[in-house]
Amino acid sequence: MPNFRPILHILGLLLTALAVAMLAPTAMDAAVDDVDWQVFAISALVTGFAGVSLVLAFRAREMPRLRLREAFLLTVLSWTAIAVFAALPFLFSNLGLSAADAVFEAVSGITTTGSTVLTGLDSMPRGILLWRSLLQWIGGIGIIVMAIALLPLLQVGGMQLFHTESSDRSEKVMPRLRQVTAAISALYLGFTLACALAYWAAGMTMFEAVNHAMTTLATGGYSTSDASFVKFEQASVHWIGVLFMLLGSITFTLYVRVLHGEPLALLRDSQVRWFLSMVLAGVLSVAAWIVLTQGIEAGPALRLAAFNVVSIATTTGYASADYYLWGSFAVAAFYFLTFMGGCTGSTAGAIKVFRFQVLYIVASQQLARLMVPHRVTVPRIQGKEITESIAISVLTFFFFYATTFAVIALALALFGLDMETALSGSATAVGNVGPGLGPVIGPAGNFSSLPDGAKWVLSAGMLLGRLEFVTVFVLFTRAFWRD
Amino acid sequence: MPNFRPILHILGLLLTALAVAMLAPTAMDAAVDDVDWQVFAISALVTGFAGVSLVLAFRAREMPRLRLREAFLLTVLSWTAIAVFAALPFLFSNLGLSAADAVFEAVSGITTTGSTVLTGLDSMPRGILLWRSLLQWIGGIGIIVMAIALLPLLQVGGMQLFHTESSDRSEKVMPRLRQVTAAISALYLGFTLACALAYWAAGMTMFEAVNHAMTTLATGGYSTSDASFVKFEQASVHWIGVLFMLLGSITFTLYVRVLHGEPLALLRDSQVRWFLSMVLAGVLSVAAWIVLTQGIEAGPALRLAAFNVVSIATTTGYASADYYLWGSFAVAAFYFLTFMGGCTGSTAGAIKVFRFQVLYIVASQQLARLMVPHRVTVPRIQGKEITESIAISVLTFFFFYATTFAVIALALALFGLDMETALSGSATAVGNVGPGLGPVIGPAGNFSSLPDGAKWVLSAGMLLGRLEFVTVFVLFTRAFWRD
Repeated sequence: MPNFRPILHILGLLLTALAVAMLAPTAMDAAVDDVDWQVFAISALVTGFAGVSLVLAFRAREMPRLRLREAFLLTVLSWTAIAVFAALPFLFSNLGLSAADAVFEAVSGITTTGSTVLTGLDSMPRGILLWRSLLQWIGGIGIIVMAIALLPLLQVGGMQLFHTESSDRSEKVMPRLRQVTAAISALYLGFTLACALAYWAAGMTMFEAVNHAMTTLATGGYSTSDASFVKFEQASVHWIGVLFMLLGSITFTLYVRVLHGEPLALLRDSQVRWFLSMVLAGVLSVAAWIVLTQGIEAGPALRLAAFNVVSIATTTGYASADYYLWGSFAVAAFYFLTFMGGCTGSTAGAIKVFRFQVLYIVASQQLARLMVPHRVTVPRIQGKEITESIAISVLTFFFFYATTFAVIALALALFGLDMETALSGSATAVGNVGPGLGPVIGPAGNFSSLPDGAKWVLSAGMLLGRLEFVTVFVLFTRAFWRD
Repeated sequence: MPNFRPILHILGLLLTALAVAMLAPTAMDAAVDDVDWQVFAISALVTGFAGVSLVLAFRAREMPRLRLREAFLLTVLSWTAIAVFAALPFLFSNLGLSAADAVFEAVSGITTTGSTVLTGLDSMPRGILLWRSLLQWIGGIGIIVMAIALLPLLQVGGMQLFHTESSDRSEKVMPRLRQVTAAISALYLGFTLACALAYWAAGMTMFEAVNHAMTTLATGGYSTSDASFVKFEQASVHWIGVLFMLLGSITFTLYVRVLHGEPLALLRDSQVRWFLSMVLAGVLSVAAWIVLTQGIEAGPALRLAAFNVVSIATTTGYASADYYLWGSFAVAAFYFLTFMGGCTGSTAGAIKVFRFQVLYIVASQQLARLMVPHRVTVPRIQGKEITESIAISVLTFFFFYATTFAVIALALALFGLDMETALSGSATAVGNVGPGLGPVIGPAGNFSSLPDGAKWVLSAGMLLGRLEFVTVFVLFTRAFWRD
């Protein structure tokens, strides 16, 4: 059995932090005399009470260290609990949201997905808008830290490739977590400030700029307007968005290395090169398609394609046009882009580029081996050996991804969603992207009209995708609960 | 460089056999005084001339043995060449078919896919109808022999699991091919005759019975009527279809073992148990769905669900109703069933059940290993070890499958096909199933209205799927052409 004491203690700390975060929208609403501040004050009280209670109830003179088992359980419990408590402001507000709505919106926030059930954003209390952006921003730094410090130790989905230290994976989860968090958080904050300033200079209001900067770096995609980026006419706003979405979906440790005197670390990283090449191919082919079939001129076509392709490939989810109306090839391209994802160790979701690299390398080697069966060559990625164990780990990740995608799509269909909505809805949830395709949940649509059951299913999909499946599924094995 | 002499010699033999097969529809049309017999006579002449020329030009006193390299090349060349020559009767006929149409119809036949560009089947010359059925029947036995005798030696997609003999894979391709072919062919013929008699007894005409028996056992799906099985009102006809479609998609070597005094060989085979369980789950869930949402009574609902689910899961492709109209869950279920496929060593296409088994076993073991990293357990399937090399081979098969599926869907979208048509069209082609989904290529639709470019793309997809990708892709590696 896992040791629940440290797990619940840390969970208490996280919830207490969440309660503190709720003070930001409280203050924001109180400052403009919006009575909505009470919603956040009450939510903060409830969350803080739960958090502090857990901290006190499960403290210990000497806290036992987290073992592997506890790390898995803590990961799943903390993301779930944070999502539930983060839903309180949505539930308590006068927006008329059901529990399914509130949890969906909170999960979509904390997982940096960006699908929304809210309409009328433009006239909504600022506290609510800020809370949505904050959730994505917190979720963004949360996933980076998890991907860099935790998942490689847990050997999730081939992430052990990124475990730089000795292969000791036993008792050192917490120290490493702390050490990485500081540097990355500073960078994350710095990028966000730079992005906010740039947006502001390009013409957004300060409130819009701060909110969008948070959801851009988090590759989250929540906007302060129902129209998303269609609202902003300035081309510069869109190009700033493209730049910072890309920055948000590149491995953050690489930036640290650049700052530590390795200026070429980014260019030397093959995942970054693959990622940028794939994005470029997507942008150019969609731009060419809309020039040829939609009668859009080359300049605007490039900007539209760049913004929306980058938005989906980085799993952000903004839209600067209803690209669902761009015709067959564009729709199919956006569908498959939903599965792509950015680089590992970033805020991006979905499959992520290094897994495509591993697959490509392993598959090429398989073909070569057919002809020369006894040749022993060890495939490598960035100088690191792709052992058979890592290959199988990556490949089973695909199996989990595909299975979860199919099960969720079938479940959505059970609730009456048509094929296009069910397939793209499942893909966008599991990939933490944001918009689906079709008239209902497409880039110009909204998730509010879906039945509550479908919203619960999608919420589960978003959490599963963010936790990279394995972290959750391992809890359902016998080995996990055996001593 | 591969040695082309034996390859072209055998290719000549195969084309000569194809020319002989063309004499059947020639005779059929001549017997009823249909001038269409000339179409087949000319096609037979052309094909026979090409075949005999190759045989004579590339004979040798002592024929060099086929090595691995030649086996790959022969496989790809023979399926392609047979498809091209088999298209001649369609091209020469007065059906007004383009080259794209004729090749599509022939490829769909020989790969036992069953997608068609022909309409007005009910009043078509009988020779053409017989030729379509014959192509599927020949393609069916072709793929069984290939899957049992050749692919395990070539180590394609984890098929080495089914390589029963010593792991010597060097020089023995041809003897083993011959040895297996005889027993399996006799069985295949026997099943077909039994199926024809059963259909006939249940109310089909003799011509209908023979044609449908050939395309049932081949899990091909070509019918002699535009209405497919909607034409036959007798419930018994549908249940006979269900039985023989299932028989056609179960490993044929198991039947041989049953006949050799191992009566429980079928039940003991875990792939068969998984396959039947998956089919049963599909039938029951679709039946329940249409009872609850379509107001169909339980009895007819079970028959409709059984026939159409079995048809798609076995990659046959008949329809006894326009199941596209059965609502969201049914459509999504049929979409995912398109990827399933039957057992290996049968006429069924798509992914096939043993690969799901291997994936499930490997993924379960991955999860267990996360908690107990140093435990060494060798996963097994039916008593055979799933080595890491086999696991990777199966997993890369999924990668090839997914990549081919995505590329073909994108290509179809480039030709203007909507998302539902492009996705389901790609899935049905790559899986050698037959119908897609949607109003255009769905169970009540037809592929004739697609642009020629889309037909070429689909033809390529059908061949790639039938040849299990690897067989084709290996020809594009440097190792293949190096000495």
